[in-house]
Amino acid sequence: MLDLIKSGETSYNSWLQYSKITDSPLVDNYSPFLEHVVIPENTEVINSAKEELLCGISSMFGKSLNISTELKKESFIFLGTEDKYEMVKELIGVDLLGQLNNEGYIIKSFESNNSIIIFGKNDKGVLYGVFHLLRLIQTDSSLNNIDIFENPKNQLRMINEWDNMDGSVERGYAGNSIFFEENRFVRDWDRIKDYARMLSSVGINAIAFNNVNVHEVESKLITTEFLPDVAKVASIFRAYGIKTFLSINYASPIQIGGLDTADPLDEKVRNWWKEKTKEIYQYIPDFGGVLVKADSEHRPGPFTYNRTHADGSNMLAEAIEPFGGIVLWRCFVYNCMQDWRDRSTDRAKAAYDHFKPLDGQFKDNVVLQIKNGPMDFQVREGVSPLFGAMPKTNQLLEFQIAQEYTGQQRHVCYLIPQWKEILDFDTYANGEGTPVKSVVDGSQFQYTHCGITAVSNIGNDVNWTGHTLAQANLYGYGRLTWNPDLSSEIITDEWVKATFGTDLDVVSEISDMLLQSWRIYENYTSPLGVGWMVNPEHHYGPNVDGYEYSVWGTYHFADCKGIGVDRTISTGTGYTGQYFPENQTMYESLDTCPDELLLFFHHVPYTHVLKSGKTVIQHIYDTHFEGVEQAEGLKQRWLALEGKIDPTRFRGILERLEHQAEHSKEWRDIINTYFYRKSGIPDEKNRKIY
Amino acid sequence: MLDLIKSGETSYNSWLQYSKITDSPLVDNYSPFLEHVVIPENTEVINSAKEELLCGISSMFGKSLNISTELKKESFIFLGTEDKYEMVKELIGVDLLGQLNNEGYIIKSFESNNSIIIFGKNDKGVLYGVFHLLRLIQTDSSLNNIDIFENPKNQLRMINEWDNMDGSVERGYAGNSIFFEENRFVRDWDRIKDYARMLSSVGINAIAFNNVNVHEVESKLITTEFLPDVAKVASIFRAYGIKTFLSINYASPIQIGGLDTADPLDEKVRNWWKEKTKEIYQYIPDFGGVLVKADSEHRPGPFTYNRTHADGSNMLAEAIEPFGGIVLWRCFVYNCMQDWRDRSTDRAKAAYDHFKPLDGQFKDNVVLQIKNGPMDFQVREGVSPLFGAMPKTNQLLEFQIAQEYTGQQRHVCYLIPQWKEILDFDTYANGEGTPVKSVVDGSQFQYTHCGITAVSNIGNDVNWTGHTLAQANLYGYGRLTWNPDLSSEIITDEWVKATFGTDLDVVSEISDMLLQSWRIYENYTSPLGVGWMVNPEHHYGPNVDGYEYSVWGTYHFADCKGIGVDRTISTGTGYTGQYFPENQTMYESLDTCPDELLLFFHHVPYTHVLKSGKTVIQHIYDTHFEGVEQAEGLKQRWLALEGKIDPTRFRGILERLEHQAEHSKEWRDIINTYFYRKSGIPDEKNRKIY
Repeated sequence: MLDLIKSGETSYNSWLQYSKITDSPLVDNYSPFLEHVVIPENTEVINSAKEELLCGISSMFGKSLNISTELKKESFIFLGTEDKYEMVKELIGVDLLGQLNNEGYIIKSFESNNSIIIFGKNDKGVLYGVFHLLRLIQTDSSLNNIDIFENPKNQLRMINEWDNMDGSVERGYAGNSIFFEENRFVRDWDRIKDYARMLSSVGINAIAFNNVNVHEVESKLITTEFLPDVAKVASIFRAYGIKTFLSINYASPIQIGGLDTADPLDEKVRNWWKEKTKEIYQYIPDFGGVLVKADSEHRPGPFTYNRTHADGSNMLAEAIEPFGGIVLWRCFVYNCMQDWRDRSTDRAKAAYDHFKPLDGQFKDNVVLQIKNGPMDFQVREGVSPLFGAMPKTNQLLEFQIAQEYTGQQRHVCYLIPQWKEILDFDTYANGEGTPVKSVVDGSQFQYTHCGITAVSNIGNDVNWTGHTLAQANLYGYGRLTWNPDLSSEIITDEWVKATFGTDLDVVSEISDMLLQSWRIYENYTSPLGVGWMVNPEHHYGPNVDGYEYSVWGTYHFADCKGIGVDRTISTGTGYTGQYFPENQTMYESLDTCPDELLLFFHHVPYTHVLKSGKTVIQHIYDTHFEGVEQAEGLKQRWLALEGKIDPTRFRGILERLEHQAEHSKEWRDIINTYFYRKSGIPDEKNRKIY
Repeated sequence: MLDLIKSGETSYNSWLQYSKITDSPLVDNYSPFLEHVVIPENTEVINSAKEELLCGISSMFGKSLNISTELKKESFIFLGTEDKYEMVKELIGVDLLGQLNNEGYIIKSFESNNSIIIFGKNDKGVLYGVFHLLRLIQTDSSLNNIDIFENPKNQLRMINEWDNMDGSVERGYAGNSIFFEENRFVRDWDRIKDYARMLSSVGINAIAFNNVNVHEVESKLITTEFLPDVAKVASIFRAYGIKTFLSINYASPIQIGGLDTADPLDEKVRNWWKEKTKEIYQYIPDFGGVLVKADSEHRPGPFTYNRTHADGSNMLAEAIEPFGGIVLWRCFVYNCMQDWRDRSTDRAKAAYDHFKPLDGQFKDNVVLQIKNGPMDFQVREGVSPLFGAMPKTNQLLEFQIAQEYTGQQRHVCYLIPQWKEILDFDTYANGEGTPVKSVVDGSQFQYTHCGITAVSNIGNDVNWTGHTLAQANLYGYGRLTWNPDLSSEIITDEWVKATFGTDLDVVSEISDMLLQSWRIYENYTSPLGVGWMVNPEHHYGPNVDGYEYSVWGTYHFADCKGIGVDRTISTGTGYTGQYFPENQTMYESLDTCPDELLLFFHHVPYTHVLKSGKTVIQHIYDTHFEGVEQAEGLKQRWLALEGKIDPTRFRGILERLEHQAEHSKEWRDIINTYFYRKSGIPDEKNRKIY
């Protein structure tokens, strides 16, 4: 039986609260269905589904379901994948059954005999169906006339942990790793299981649980020293339908193999990887594959040997192919030792320049993992022009749930609206109507593997995410990955209800706070898509020139006259030319470039008039004053919910909102002062600028 | 016998090279004196002197001196302190003997019988005299008619190591600690002895060898766990006339004493310190005293208990008084959590504001340790107005030999000329002609303890200081502390000859490189006394806004019109009012404020015309272009010395000069670009600004 509410904190249970249902009309609606659970099959995943259902019902209704392997006449919930029961087939309809994909499921309810059928094409579908049913109950939905058909839109729905074996988490803002400590695996398997439940409940089906920057100890994860532990973790995730991947060190043949090279075309190297792969699969027969950050930010890669990324990834792909594994190959390749004086190099162009020419050269079990934007998870940037630009190469979209540049889980910044915009961005790859989501779900091109992945935002803080409201980003990420067509509003509504209950004030206030938070954060941080302006290294807090003279290729070029990066073809770096013509034209012209990305694409005077009618400088002042008021507003709105939220979560969130309100002032004042000092142009409204 | 030339590197021997003398005329001059050494006494320090003399003569001449306790007729060197020998008294003259102070010495040579008399008032004087004689020989001076009378000008001539017990050195740029590693004492006592020799050779007589920031482990240095090791180190230094001090944690009564307070007026606390002091003196009977950084940069102090710095230091002074010890109390007290928006607070004013009102309240064995400037060891800043402002309070001047803000021993920056300017700065405390040096040497006021201290620049790099040329700063510091009237030129000439030999080209080139290096470094770094503009935390490399919006109180206030800190009484922070009227008037007025400190005292437009006739902005451009050319020049001049310097030191120094030449470009370009972008004013000479 699952053990809910750890450490005395409700926040631990995230959206799987399963709070006691006390509202009587609903209990009356639910009760008749909740007598028996019929489970003819017996797989690990089905058992997870059963356990979750029993736990959820027990927790919400204080009631134990009777378990049966045989169909009942009435008052039952059926969980299964086989169509040997004519009744089930009949009730669902054969046509519909045929439309299920591998992970799809159907939920139907019948008032006639108070029954609910949860039917999966495979056992994973059953598990997803159970989570769906529990979500319906948690969100106060009636169980009458349920008629749900769900296929996940994306094949790969993945999470990347950036956990190091010393227990630290790169870009982690919620404590240490739940996987590692002191260069070994932790022994709190229950916590990993609870994480698996959370991920599975929103449809995640793959995880790489070590950092893409694979250091010395982590390189040994694929050796017998650690493979037994990897296998143990993999078995926990397996029971929740989640495949395990590992991030690997491209130089492993040297680091742990004792070879003198990692050249992908070297026969010794190829054989070493084949043997290594065989060994991994002996421990984890359904191992998902490897995730590789090569030739990126000082990590080793094929460039060392004058080989291409195709050579490098194909070599691994060949080794892993016999076992059905895949190679996730990151495209975050750029010159991280740029000279700031060199105005011709544009980091934004790097991924496209490196990978586009290789289209068609990758094996079928290689997938290119592409960050959503060409820079690095900024609060606002263009969408990567690589999406749709490689019709013959599998693509995987990478988001960052961890709020590295969006408040580090001390500020609330709900990212679903941002991700929606990116997924809906029309690449024009196959003409109008080729949004990013249709590229990465494989419907545009003949992709064998594709989908979405993201950097996780969890750690061993009791509430998983540091800021309890940041749980919503993890939840929403999963839901959106399952179905990118879900609206932000629907996802948010689900999360708030499952997490905080269904009180109308609570739901409408928290939902609205979340939905506005991204724009609020953008308001008081870097303006108009220019990005950065953060403190180097840790990336927290304002520092307008923090990266201006650095090697990282992330500049804003502000001077006394204007600001922005000219990425046009006509006078700039030519980055706009990487987009399909419709977008190229839109971004190239000041007339059609959206204001919110103006400084990402153009260098303009502070007196340039935006489509809003405001000058750039006045826009900077206005948004920064407004952002602080909004941050203060978030705090006030939260305060008004006192008494409707349990005290621990209320206080925990309040503390962070108070910090955000204060810290937003620091942002406002530094940005405003910087630009006032630089431009000499006063605020039209004469507000306080230091 | 001393073991010269460790690790096969001549640089280890610093200025105590004792290189073989091959020039025959000089050998002819020296030889007749070098037969016997007469040493009637036998103290630890005299033995050090004897050992050094034998080693030096043997190394330079391949000749062993005969040792005797009885005077010879001729061809001898006499070392001694007693005047029982009528001949000695007669030769020196009784009047002169009476003028020697405790550490003074006399050296006289007599061609008549080829004898040299080195006479010290005490044994330390003998040791200093031996080092002086060896220096004369190393610098090619004739031994005929020597007639030297030396009294050190300063009573305390001290070194502060900022070494932590984990082996790191705060602001260390030459490897790790020679004292500590892995939270214990190192066992390489020989290296500490060689350090003692170096220090003693230039007259240093006191050392505190642990960091002023006293962390957890270091707090235990005054416990029985570590006192035996402290005593061992103290015994090494004692043999070279150097007294040992320790930096202590003001909160020791709590941290290691188990008390619940460190309130200086609490009887328990007072008794605890008395007992603790007694314990220390049981291990080190001549323990010098304690060095305290209290209420400074988050260190504990009397403010916690609403007590003054007088309360805090007097309590310690009372405990240590019976044993003859003293308390060195740092005045680096300021608000390190300043809000950059607060323009009324001025860090430069803090030390004066805190300490000046307490004049007369300190016990006689308390000495206030005051940094040379009111900010923090910048390449150029005003002199601390505290000097001379507290006639009833002992003062100690603190320099920083470690090049924290002056190139971190990767750039050559010879600081003797800077220190000379500071020592010669007229405070007007007793009217015209009251230079800083006359305050801290005790000749102006009735000080019981005073002198000069400095943060060391050494570590366990083979050559001690990382940059071999940085050895000159340690050498010059000691020489200047002994006698602040020595010219930079004389000190430099001594160091180069002792270190690299007496080749005329070598001496003139290196001397000139050193003497110009401070100005060169200033040229390409922060201009006109404004300071900072470095990367936060590690303080290396340019970052114009690095501290502009920080909590540290170190701002330049550059905007599109001008730059600088208005510290005037009339329109600024009022800092100038802390100086005596003559200096106040000089700094207050734009007409009389020296250009080199203009931006330290005034905020001016970029178009302000300097006394040089250039505008501020053009001065910035010109000095930065010039500084880079000069840095390149240093490299070229060094290259021209190839073959005249041993290959190891030649290459080691060349590598650093090459780095400096490159890194100076980074400084030039970032500073120039920053100000061009900010001011919009182009370079008159149209040089490349990015």
